[in-house]
Amino acid sequence: MDTIKYLLPDSEIPKAWYNIVADLPAPPPPPLHPGTGEPLTAAELEPLFAKELIAQEMSSEREIEIPAEVRQILAQWRPSPLYRARRLEKALGTPARIYYKYEGTSPSGSHKFNTALPQVYYNKAEGTKRITTETGAGQWGSALSIACSMFDIPCEVFMVKVSFSQKPYRKALMETFGGRCIASPSMDTEAGRAILAVDPECPGSLGIAISEAVEVAAKNPDTKYCLGSVLNHVLLHQTVIGLESMRQFELADDYPDVIIGCTGGGSNFAGIAFPFMGESLRGGRKAQIIAVEPSACPSLTKGRYAYDFGDTGKLTPLVKMHTLGSSFIPPAIHTGGLRYHGMAPLVSHVQELGLMESRSVGQKDVFRAGVAFAKAEGILPAPEASHAIAALLDEAIRCREEGVSKSLLVNLCGHGHFDMTAYMKHAAGEIEDYDYPAGEIAMALAGLPAVATQ
Amino acid sequence: MDTIKYLLPDSEIPKAWYNIVADLPAPPPPPLHPGTGEPLTAAELEPLFAKELIAQEMSSEREIEIPAEVRQILAQWRPSPLYRARRLEKALGTPARIYYKYEGTSPSGSHKFNTALPQVYYNKAEGTKRITTETGAGQWGSALSIACSMFDIPCEVFMVKVSFSQKPYRKALMETFGGRCIASPSMDTEAGRAILAVDPECPGSLGIAISEAVEVAAKNPDTKYCLGSVLNHVLLHQTVIGLESMRQFELADDYPDVIIGCTGGGSNFAGIAFPFMGESLRGGRKAQIIAVEPSACPSLTKGRYAYDFGDTGKLTPLVKMHTLGSSFIPPAIHTGGLRYHGMAPLVSHVQELGLMESRSVGQKDVFRAGVAFAKAEGILPAPEASHAIAALLDEAIRCREEGVSKSLLVNLCGHGHFDMTAYMKHAAGEIEDYDYPAGEIAMALAGLPAVATQ
Repeated sequence: MDTIKYLLPDSEIPKAWYNIVADLPAPPPPPLHPGTGEPLTAAELEPLFAKELIAQEMSSEREIEIPAEVRQILAQWRPSPLYRARRLEKALGTPARIYYKYEGTSPSGSHKFNTALPQVYYNKAEGTKRITTETGAGQWGSALSIACSMFDIPCEVFMVKVSFSQKPYRKALMETFGGRCIASPSMDTEAGRAILAVDPECPGSLGIAISEAVEVAAKNPDTKYCLGSVLNHVLLHQTVIGLESMRQFELADDYPDVIIGCTGGGSNFAGIAFPFMGESLRGGRKAQIIAVEPSACPSLTKGRYAYDFGDTGKLTPLVKMHTLGSSFIPPAIHTGGLRYHGMAPLVSHVQELGLMESRSVGQKDVFRAGVAFAKAEGILPAPEASHAIAALLDEAIRCREEGVSKSLLVNLCGHGHFDMTAYMKHAAGEIEDYDYPAGEIAMALAGLPAVATQ
Repeated sequence: MDTIKYLLPDSEIPKAWYNIVADLPAPPPPPLHPGTGEPLTAAELEPLFAKELIAQEMSSEREIEIPAEVRQILAQWRPSPLYRARRLEKALGTPARIYYKYEGTSPSGSHKFNTALPQVYYNKAEGTKRITTETGAGQWGSALSIACSMFDIPCEVFMVKVSFSQKPYRKALMETFGGRCIASPSMDTEAGRAILAVDPECPGSLGIAISEAVEVAAKNPDTKYCLGSVLNHVLLHQTVIGLESMRQFELADDYPDVIIGCTGGGSNFAGIAFPFMGESLRGGRKAQIIAVEPSACPSLTKGRYAYDFGDTGKLTPLVKMHTLGSSFIPPAIHTGGLRYHGMAPLVSHVQELGLMESRSVGQKDVFRAGVAFAKAEGILPAPEASHAIAALLDEAIRCREEGVSKSLLVNLCGHGHFDMTAYMKHAAGEIEDYDYPAGEIAMALAGLPAVATQ
């Protein structure tokens, strides 16, 4: 038999997360207090986050130990499989060697559970009585609800309204595990009410949902907030993906020439890319690393690298990132997980350092790529992941045209079993390519906070 | 770390399926031609099935080799994981050791892909140009569509109307992979038109959908029919589940005292149970083996062991099985995969031989059990599988009450990500326990064919 999957035993579940900050040639710019413009202190974050998560957020240690109890639960589906996509290679007629790391085997069906689990674990250990969060497509909200169910903590999820309507089954999944799911913008918060006063039909955005979840945590001392992407500690937790992949490539006796991930907030991309990037920073082999985002929400390719708020309601600290302006509300594309105005500060920083590149793709190409992948490999990708697959197909075809056999690695960060409405629209020819919303982005960027000129 | 999963390398994917017929103390009664009442010949089955599948159907060889190309594709998700449900044990406070074999990691999310793959493979090898089938909940139709997509054969799926309406996303999944999905009863076939003439609102049943799919195959020489359960060769293909489990129990240094599976047509149950049953028949250890079915469609617990048609339209051969009468249309319970009037002849035969027992459970208990399992283990079961889980919880609680530490094995044959409508109804308190439809069953049994008196 040709080997098509590379599995590792439980003993190879990473014992520590990898923190790329330790290996960077320049430290990332610190988050700033929006009032004073001064670097944020740990104490200032404590109303929102568990202390251990704040410590991880600010750490420059290369390795941060994964608690035994977290590894115990991770063992349910980790190490996740690395696949060689031999049928896809054949379908494309490419000499490229295509690999995909598959995170869809987690209980919630995506990579999000990798960080939901430790975030809830640390909150439980520190006595948090309730957790709030936002969710876009619902992958993060599902993961957090399941993790909260395991640790018996109530969970409130503000779900971006457009996704809430497109994906009733995601809400049902969260509620089955005991989570409470609220369409955002909602009347539950000041931030939500302010938006609805201006635009009662607002489809919502991750930026707005973050404002609502942060507000609830800020106002209730026993409640903490968890975020599903963007922050350093979230990216850190996702590095299990890349760390496992490195070991699996040893089993395959290969090494990726190109590594591709989709980006919304940046966490699944960082998860697969950072461990490889770190090896290269420490003098090892160097792969071409490509982030792929929707052309309708192009923070890395068209945004400005500047200090901005992480949310629309301007409740969060200022972080330096590629941003489209925190007031920008992306078109209602069918990849709710990527509808974010900003980008993880660490991803933004490593792009500025020239360690990676970024591309954008339109919705039609995304769904065509997803269906082509599904027909060859049998696994239906989440449309978010299909952004990465679209770029993967481009690279594989380029290899065919140039007669070059490169090794291509893509992060298939989740399955699409909750995205059938979008696939139905694709089949009916109803998926639209949104124009690049240049005017709205320009307007949002014009409203960047003053400190953004730094 | 406590071990919670037992994985096997690709080299441990079974090289042969296990055929229990070789080890039975008495051969199963043969299928009969409905016109002559004589045992069916292979030639009489050729209009419907690929020759190699007919040979397997009639074989009494203990081992039947799995083709290399089939094993190559099986390797994508097989050997599937065997889990120790330590969190569930803790939640129940039971001294029982609970294990579950998880088939939800297959491309279609259930065990059905185990047989879809070889069925399509043999048809492709023999030149079949189109495949028809029926599907209840949609798990089988999805699996067959994906397999047909891999081998580039057009696929037509008659989907039981009540499930077609409850589960639009299953239809979308089939269509994404190129399958055509038709609500049954339909106007496409004589069988469908005859039913609709009597009852235009008929919710459909597996028996009716089988009639439609068989009719299309019988009338078109280049078209063959595939069945997702019931037949000997289908059960055969599912024995990879039990064969792997036996090796995984060796890794766990344990042996199941009790093995539990749900039954509709009987294939996932036979898949996990028959290899263990065979070991016992050859003089090895003996487990208690329990089939669990819906109380609204209780073929094994309340049906008659008699010759009957496999379909409602009386197009199939007569098979001896536990039947509720082929004209019985089960209530519209939320487990479409179990709404079948009959039972696999081999499962019926081994029950008659005293090698297993059967139980029935109501819908409310099924959903309560499924949610309890999900909250502990993080995996949302398909409601079909939750029948087995309901019996598992009963056994685990009995162990607690009796202070006995038994080893319990359940087949978690699929995930419930396409069953969220049903979970939403459960959350809203709208899942009903149907009364045992005694009158309708009595009427259907009164209409059994004359040969049934044999």
